[in-house]
Amino acid sequence: MNEISIIPIKGLPEVKKGDDLASMTFDLINKSRNEIKDNDIFVITQKIVSKSEGMERDLNKYEFEDLIKSETKQIIRKRGDLIIAKTKHGFICANAGIDKSNIEKNKALLLPEDPNKSAHKFRSQIETSSGKTVAVVISDTFGRAWRKGQVNFAIGSSGISPITNYIGKFDSFNNELFATEIATIDEIASAAELVMEKSIDIPIAIIRGLKYESSNENAELLIRDDQEDFFL
Amino acid sequence: MNEISIIPIKGLPEVKKGDDLASMTFDLINKSRNEIKDNDIFVITQKIVSKSEGMERDLNKYEFEDLIKSETKQIIRKRGDLIIAKTKHGFICANAGIDKSNIEKNKALLLPEDPNKSAHKFRSQIETSSGKTVAVVISDTFGRAWRKGQVNFAIGSSGISPITNYIGKFDSFNNELFATEIATIDEIASAAELVMEKSIDIPIAIIRGLKYESSNENAELLIRDDQEDFFL
Repeated sequence: MNEISIIPIKGLPEVKKGDDLASMTFDLINKSRNEIKDNDIFVITQKIVSKSEGMERDLNKYEFEDLIKSETKQIIRKRGDLIIAKTKHGFICANAGIDKSNIEKNKALLLPEDPNKSAHKFRSQIETSSGKTVAVVISDTFGRAWRKGQVNFAIGSSGISPITNYIGKFDSFNNELFATEIATIDEIASAAELVMEKSIDIPIAIIRGLKYESSNENAELLIRDDQEDFFL
Repeated sequence: MNEISIIPIKGLPEVKKGDDLASMTFDLINKSRNEIKDNDIFVITQKIVSKSEGMERDLNKYEFEDLIKSETKQIIRKRGDLIIAKTKHGFICANAGIDKSNIEKNKALLLPEDPNKSAHKFRSQIETSSGKTVAVVISDTFGRAWRKGQVNFAIGSSGISPITNYIGKFDSFNNELFATEIATIDEIASAAELVMEKSIDIPIAIIRGLKYESSNENAELLIRDDQEDFFL
């Protein structure tokens, strides 16, 4: 493995419902000194995907609590104002992933209906425009059990194997590796966050130089089945 | 924020008890075409830190289960062979962080006694040798609640603020950010893992180009207090 670059894509205008994110991104890269290369991985924050897909809700019309209910499959924990919920997609996060920051006042932003579909659409368009093979990860910022602070996770993906599997391979001592499956797209989402400052809001980054496996599987693969989970 | 590089440091010989990791790393970088720059963040896998600090245990002398007990403050979950334990450092992970891969057969490797101290020592030595200001993160690969696959986490750090705090800052819509604290050193550990392939075992990477806050705080800051945690 050689060096990997994390490249922030700056200058995207404010995204509105109906905007074509892939075209906007392609134009922005073409106008800058950057170019798209084969095997670039585009990491896109959920916020701009949700905005382009019309997932904003007016808090003068809807109660925040009702929005949370509408997005929730199961309440996992509730303490005071804090609700940790499993979303209809299967993500476990605060407020079912609904956000009130980086959006106009009195608005709330829901997660995309189908982040894998959003990732796939973005990838197809970029591949058609650029003639390059790329992958896409849609990221969101969630808290974790046991550890303070939030990190970015992959909530959707296209064109990249979500997991790098070392099971059955051998380490340098010729021990067979039994339990190492790396959630590569979560690590990619976290890596991209390092160039996406929350306050100045850089919503897209390219990870370049990672040798990844292409795949038809998507981020859904990372959601653990309830019966296999110890912490529900 | 500009581009960030993740640079694998290749060619480290097999690490043995008593080895001086910082000197070995410094020599390796000097011999290669790389050089150490100000604000480089060294990410070092726990395995080589533990090996250099003599944390290998002979499984002909010790029962694996007894080693787990000796490292455990609290058993969090147990199902069949799988034990999820809180280590004496406060990490919640399988087998109290004890590993049987990337080590000679019939050996097990415990976590470092004090990973923050290990990080601090490595940083001091590199800073003295190179004359540059650097930061250090010691990483390990853990599973997570709710999601399949493992990612790298920061178990020790020195010279870098573990959390980037946006609370009280304002987003581009002039909303005050209330709840965004990014666990930057965990994201750094995950980013570094992308160049550290498990089977060929690259144990050190440099993250270059990240504008980070220097700090006297360390990775202990990321451990959530029991009474604040919903998932114990």
